[in-house]
Amino acid sequence: MSRPTLHFWFEFASTYSYLSAMRVEKMAEDAGVDLEWHPFWLGPIFHAQGWTSSPFNLYPVKGAYMWRDMARLCADRGLPLVQPDPFPQNGVLAARVALLALAQDAAKGAAYVTSVYRAEFGEGRQISDPELIAELLAQSGLPADLIEQAGGDAAKQALKDKVAEAMDLGLFGAPSFIAKGEVFWGDDRLENAIAHLKAV
Amino acid sequence: MSRPTLHFWFEFASTYSYLSAMRVEKMAEDAGVDLEWHPFWLGPIFHAQGWTSSPFNLYPVKGAYMWRDMARLCADRGLPLVQPDPFPQNGVLAARVALLALAQDAAKGAAYVTSVYRAEFGEGRQISDPELIAELLAQSGLPADLIEQAGGDAAKQALKDKVAEAMDLGLFGAPSFIAKGEVFWGDDRLENAIAHLKAV
Repeated sequence: MSRPTLHFWFEFASTYSYLSAMRVEKMAEDAGVDLEWHPFWLGPIFHAQGWTSSPFNLYPVKGAYMWRDMARLCADRGLPLVQPDPFPQNGVLAARVALLALAQDAAKGAAYVTSVYRAEFGEGRQISDPELIAELLAQSGLPADLIEQAGGDAAKQALKDKVAEAMDLGLFGAPSFIAKGEVFWGDDRLENAIAHLKAV
Repeated sequence: MSRPTLHFWFEFASTYSYLSAMRVEKMAEDAGVDLEWHPFWLGPIFHAQGWTSSPFNLYPVKGAYMWRDMARLCADRGLPLVQPDPFPQNGVLAARVALLALAQDAAKGAAYVTSVYRAEFGEGRQISDPELIAELLAQSGLPADLIEQAGGDAAKQALKDKVAEAMDLGLFGAPSFIAKGEVFWGDDRLENAIAHLKAV
């Protein structure tokens, strides 16, 4: 019998995606399920809802709560947290590169993805900076020329296709998980998504 | 040493507040913490954010997800779920009565609150209907004249004061929990709020 697959949809600008990216591999492994990484981009999805920035900036009281909630959760999980400036970071380059990296080598691609989150939210670095991306690719054993490829039409279209796929799936935020066709939204639904995959 | 207190802030129109209302008493009891019930009203808070309805209506993709998420969670917890029509229900009368009921008798007031949620989301009944509220008050051993009192200036002001208090506390959604001055938002943070109260 084939192992069920957990689909992990993430946006690099998303704080709660950081939480999931840092634990999803171990959780999938412990549960005996396969894991697929799906970088996407919330910008066009938020824009279609009339949002011009992160909802955490548009609704500052909610934003203040989110940072406090993140601080508590990161402390509980032993994760560093540095608020990047600006927030949200522009994660488009990182996402285009992630699609290429994951297609080339799933394990190295996953290592690159987690390294982007660690740099962004653990160290407060600028993930829109190609020099940072080159450094992270090198650390993950991936070629720096993915950055140049990410500027090409095919890579741009690949990310647009991913956004269209996300909208077709009914995704509206990140992280989101898909388990046997069911959408689970938020780091706090990761356990539910895995339980759904394991249920007979 | 006095027992710590969990403050449970809820809005009658809120689906996820239903989930918490149905489990918060047992969880507080099991954890050995006191519980205070705080009915409030999100209308003016949402309005201040530019929202004219529930965000689940304003953002239909998110709304469709919420109902699916609620259906799964209610099934897991053995709770009935009927989508009330219209959604959101107008919970202002129910909330004004709840403030009076809780002030008169905390235990009966709590029984009334959970009965409102059960009628609304377990049976799809109209909680803006004074006849339903009278029925629920009677079931909880509370006098029906609380409904008339709820139409008075003092009761109206009491709910406005509660909304102002919520805004001062930085609340922006429901359910919210306050534990040792820390805000926790959402039914999925109830365990975290209790853990925070119990931490030394």
